[in-house]
Amino acid sequence: MSTEFNLDDYIRKIPDFPKKGVLFYDITSILTSPAAFRFVIDSMLKLYDNKKIDAVAAIEARGFLFAAPFAVQAGVPLILIRKKGKLPGKTLTKKYSLEYAEAEIEIHPDDVPQGGKVLLFDDLVATGGTLNAARELITSCGAAVPEIFGVVGLPFFNYENALAPTPVKTLINYNSE
Amino acid sequence: MSTEFNLDDYIRKIPDFPKKGVLFYDITSILTSPAAFRFVIDSMLKLYDNKKIDAVAAIEARGFLFAAPFAVQAGVPLILIRKKGKLPGKTLTKKYSLEYAEAEIEIHPDDVPQGGKVLLFDDLVATGGTLNAARELITSCGAAVPEIFGVVGLPFFNYENALAPTPVKTLINYNSE
Repeated sequence: MSTEFNLDDYIRKIPDFPKKGVLFYDITSILTSPAAFRFVIDSMLKLYDNKKIDAVAAIEARGFLFAAPFAVQAGVPLILIRKKGKLPGKTLTKKYSLEYAEAEIEIHPDDVPQGGKVLLFDDLVATGGTLNAARELITSCGAAVPEIFGVVGLPFFNYENALAPTPVKTLINYNSE
Repeated sequence: MSTEFNLDDYIRKIPDFPKKGVLFYDITSILTSPAAFRFVIDSMLKLYDNKKIDAVAAIEARGFLFAAPFAVQAGVPLILIRKKGKLPGKTLTKKYSLEYAEAEIEIHPDDVPQGGKVLLFDDLVATGGTLNAARELITSCGAAVPEIFGVVGLPFFNYENALAPTPVKTLINYNSE
């Protein structure tokens, strides 16, 4: 795979979604291009090739799309982080604030490797609110989160501060609203 | 991967989820076993190796977990079928009935290959209600659905009838409630 691959060409920009004034970075246009989807998964495998990790955790639902192929190909366990009520086993729940509302996410604590290292994946990193809550769930279960990954980063939402000291890696960043 | 692999060992049975009297077949225990997850994806690749398909469509959210690794490794486009309001582009919507409620799913029609063959994937096939609505979305967009696949099948819910004449393949079936 050439490093010349321009991922930006495969991220559709949709104005006023999910509400007026928001520019939405759509990753479904990556999924419909086998070359782009393969490039993203290969890039993730390269980023984390030399790091000893014990599992990867993915945030519902778009995070699943990238974490699942990574987990299969890297041969590491995949832990789901889902909206409240979706995981059938014994769960640990975390409430957190969104812009105008509260949200709740859950994990199966028995899936988290005690004393292990768990990478945390989502499709896009913006404010880092959900990722921050997800990190707390994982660390509450006795594992460390050495790094957070998103395919797309929107650093103008200050996720670096919200998620410090955990480093955040992305494949492409957009720098203005 | 040996054909002796016993997938049943990796599907956790959880009574009374999501409500009393329902036995839930939990696939998160596949995801946390790299060998089991790899076995499922390899089995899917073997099933569809010789068939000319133009895309795979996956139903939110657990369907994404199996369709995404398949799509990356098979090199075919992945089309998402999501709950109403989640897809950012121009959508086609389908209303359908669940046991006590109505649900709505959507697709990006522009992602569907005109005149093409689209495999339809979910994690589990039970009544086939959502899969039937998803098939209608795809065929309304001008593609055929030659086959439906689920990792787990619950044939006592009569999905074969609900989804006829489209053949349904699964990796493992459970035959009683």
